[in-house]
Amino acid sequence: MKAKSPSQSRTVMTDLVLPSETNPLNNLFGGELLARMDRAASISARRHSRRITVTASVNHVAFNHSIPLGSVVTVEASVSRAFRSSMEIFIDVWIEDRFSGEKTKANEAIYTFVAVDETGKPTEVPPIVPETELEQARYDAALRRKQLSLVLAGKMKPEDATELKALFTD
Amino acid sequence: MKAKSPSQSRTVMTDLVLPSETNPLNNLFGGELLARMDRAASISARRHSRRITVTASVNHVAFNHSIPLGSVVTVEASVSRAFRSSMEIFIDVWIEDRFSGEKTKANEAIYTFVAVDETGKPTEVPPIVPETELEQARYDAALRRKQLSLVLAGKMKPEDATELKALFTD
Amino acid sequence: MKAKSPSQSRTVMTDLVLPSETNPLNNLFGGELLARMDRAASISARRHSRRITVTASVNHVAFNHSIPLGSVVTVEASVSRAFRSSMEIFIDVWIEDRFSGEKTKANEAIYTFVAVDETGKPTEVPPIVPETELEQARYDAALRRKQLSLVLAGKMKPEDATELKALFTD
Amino acid sequence: MKAKSPSQSRTVMTDLVLPSETNPLNNLFGGELLARMDRAASISARRHSRRITVTASVNHVAFNHSIPLGSVVTVEASVSRAFRSSMEIFIDVWIEDRFSGEKTKANEAIYTFVAVDETGKPTEVPPIVPETELEQARYDAALRRKQLSLVLAGKMKPEDATELKALFTD
Amino acid sequence: MKAKSPSQSRTVMTDLVLPSETNPLNNLFGGELLARMDRAASISARRHSRRITVTASVNHVAFNHSIPLGSVVTVEASVSRAFRSSMEIFIDVWIEDRFSGEKTKANEAIYTFVAVDETGKPTEVPPIVPETELEQARYDAALRRKQLSLVLAGKMKPEDATELKALFTD
Amino acid sequence: MKAKSPSQSRTVMTDLVLPSETNPLNNLFGGELLARMDRAASISARRHSRRITVTASVNHVAFNHSIPLGSVVTVEASVSRAFRSSMEIFIDVWIEDRFSGEKTKANEAIYTFVAVDETGKPTEVPPIVPETELEQARYDAALRRKQLSLVLAGKMKPEDATELKALFTD
Repeated sequence: MKAKSPSQSRTVMTDLVLPSETNPLNNLFGGELLARMDRAASISARRHSRRITVTASVNHVAFNHSIPLGSVVTVEASVSRAFRSSMEIFIDVWIEDRFSGEKTKANEAIYTFVAVDETGKPTEVPPIVPETELEQARYDAALRRKQLSLVLAGKMKPEDATELKALFTD
Repeated sequence: MKAKSPSQSRTVMTDLVLPSETNPLNNLFGGELLARMDRAASISARRHSRRITVTASVNHVAFNHSIPLGSVVTVEASVSRAFRSSMEIFIDVWIEDRFSGEKTKANEAIYTFVAVDETGKPTEVPPIVPETELEQARYDAALRRKQLSLVLAGKMKPEDATELKALFTD
Repeated sequence: MKAKSPSQSRTVMTDLVLPSETNPLNNLFGGELLARMDRAASISARRHSRRITVTASVNHVAFNHSIPLGSVVTVEASVSRAFRSSMEIFIDVWIEDRFSGEKTKANEAIYTFVAVDETGKPTEVPPIVPETELEQARYDAALRRKQLSLVLAGKMKPEDATELKALFTD
Repeated sequence: MKAKSPSQSRTVMTDLVLPSETNPLNNLFGGELLARMDRAASISARRHSRRITVTASVNHVAFNHSIPLGSVVTVEASVSRAFRSSMEIFIDVWIEDRFSGEKTKANEAIYTFVAVDETGKPTEVPPIVPETELEQARYDAALRRKQLSLVLAGKMKPEDATELKALFTD
Repeated sequence: MKAKSPSQSRTVMTDLVLPSETNPLNNLFGGELLARMDRAASISARRHSRRITVTASVNHVAFNHSIPLGSVVTVEASVSRAFRSSMEIFIDVWIEDRFSGEKTKANEAIYTFVAVDETGKPTEVPPIVPETELEQARYDAALRRKQLSLVLAGKMKPEDATELKALFTD
Repeated sequence: MKAKSPSQSRTVMTDLVLPSETNPLNNLFGGELLARMDRAASISARRHSRRITVTASVNHVAFNHSIPLGSVVTVEASVSRAFRSSMEIFIDVWIEDRFSGEKTKANEAIYTFVAVDETGKPTEVPPIVPETELEQARYDAALRRKQLSLVLAGKMKPEDATELKALFTD
């Protein structure tokens, strides 16, 4: 299968924060942001694979900045690395100030999607060729994250997680 | 006020067509598309004006292509021309084929928004400077549309609608 | 096919403005009103045609009055004129004051729907016979609007739009 | 306070059954119908009282007819009797066949609302003067229902429920 | 069919009151609570019968306590008595204070569900064996409620409603 | 502050999978499940802290089992460990078969919430005392997860993450 770059699956979802999506502090609910990121990531995974895609896992997501009611929120997703049938999707979330228009990074998240056929069986996807420095860094880190995920799930022995082990022992 | 280009207010909203948004033929409801276009246009108007903005009118919108359940729909909005406190927003709607990834133009729409202050009073917005050929064509047509709108509302005499009259009498 | 009067397709949709449907000024979002009008118009088109109906276009809609949170909004739709397979639907929107009960006209809108069979193919609808003076006026204007729409879409030459031309040259 | 007729509070809410509102048999969820009836009844109570109104109780509601996906449903509510600060609202639900247009009675329900001031304290409402035979019958039955409700809540002794007792002992 | 206890169908649905679910006094809409109770009751009916179940009726529901925005609401449903194909579901609604954590009973409601097969035809369900004193009291009262419902629907003569009659004549 | 057990914050949210919440394979959307888990976890965090709580992060979540339309889904959340102002919430997701009633574990997830005062400033919460073996295991693992999270965020040096390091070097 012909490799693709992350930019070929880039998905931009800009939308408002509506009153029905806020918590008692009048900020966007964590759960609503998780749902928007899931929809953007699923479009990105589909653009890369041209298949039906389903959420396989959500990596660690930190909510560092609250997102107030009325904000303009931009969720940007692209495939950072592809394995046999799974794709790691890197998501950046930006908010912009209503008056100055200044953009602030509000969140980062990493989702994994799997491409499946009509019966739900996993199916192969094209590899990723990173093009920018940032894309290369995310591509490299994706392997460490995959190993960590396999270790935590008990599907890989810690000593075989070469990329990950280096982080703690070098 | 410093003029801005249409690209400075460009807003991209990519999202799925979910089951709850479809009509009996399993296509996206017209009303749901109108609501999405309104949200995208309102963000675009806010990016241009850095003010609270409210929908003033919706120009003629034709639904030429149906948009099936599960489609990826991209709504792209940018300000095509600004008058004193009102802005014309031009919206292009694209759908992409799940398997080939081919993009098709599904709709065009034109909304008008007004910038207001906290009390709801109209307030001035920056002018638009078109940069591309398409932006120039939309900028020119915006004046004819404004005149037509004023004539239909009985606020301008047909004989004073110089731009519009030329269309029928030249 | 037996002609019908506009009152035979009259559709009344009275509902509240809920907190999740408001903009930053605490008024009903333009997009939500467009969606309600689309649902009411689609019922009206179905009552006239007894067919599946889909939104074909939205004519110019002006939002002259804002509709505050908690308002009672009445959307009234009826078929104003029928062509071969398309129907023009005229929509009046009323709000009423919570305390005095006084009704105010908030909006007017015109939608066009097409009747289709199960495969989505356009299918014939009954003609309209206007009964009141207002219905007659809307019926007459519908032809001008259809010509304008054809001209703007490049499907009719301005000089053939007889009804419309008269408006500017008489 | 000046008495009003039931027709002065009549509220008509016609809407579609959308895919997101159906149960596994593809019929309208009971819970969704209860919510629509509550909104229509609350508008009717407000039209009668010109006050803020809150749901006090729902009388016995039977779901005798299922309402299939895609139906046009009309909820009609009007105040059938007013007590000091409470109002009984009688609700009729109609569905119409997509092709024949034939209307069928699908449900009846009775809700009680209370008029309150801004602090939530009950406040007086105008009495009802029934005008038609049906309105008179519903007006008379309302007293029996109120007594039954008081008996079931332990706030009235069965032997004092004169209207109700007659039903079982005459 | 093997009898079951009410606790075997107990269903607990704890959730927040979100801003989109409130009335003008910032309390949970009656209609939204009715819809939540319907979903909880339908799960309870399914757990008892292991069949598709549909709402047959809602008994008298009193809204004695308002439920403010941001509350934690717990809806608890269990089958109180089963007849041939119908089940009476008793629902208790609790709210808890954000700061003290104190639980308050906010509502009680009784719904009736019917078990059906894939074609919508009623189908037999297991009997109920009450285990606690409260379950026994609700089980006994269920018969009186069923008779009352039959009398009000004109399907049983008042003199045959032995359980109910005793209430007024003893 | 007086310590609490995990069971004191246990939150059970049982609900249906509705048609509007499904993906093209007719299974529950990952994003919708993430949102439900966030709501349940936020209630659990509030029950432990009796404060306003906001989502701080979502730990790795694996979607191992798809959850079909019409399923009964139970989300169970409780606080597994508390730090100064943050709480780790452990979430178990169960689905049950419509006909056999058999329960299957569908997912596990870990969210972190922070307790804040009315101005959004972090505020202290009670410690957790685990009571069962499972609670103890989750309590112990919570520290390793916190260290991993600090390392990945660059706020702790890998060599200081004693609990975590042991996993790879022992």
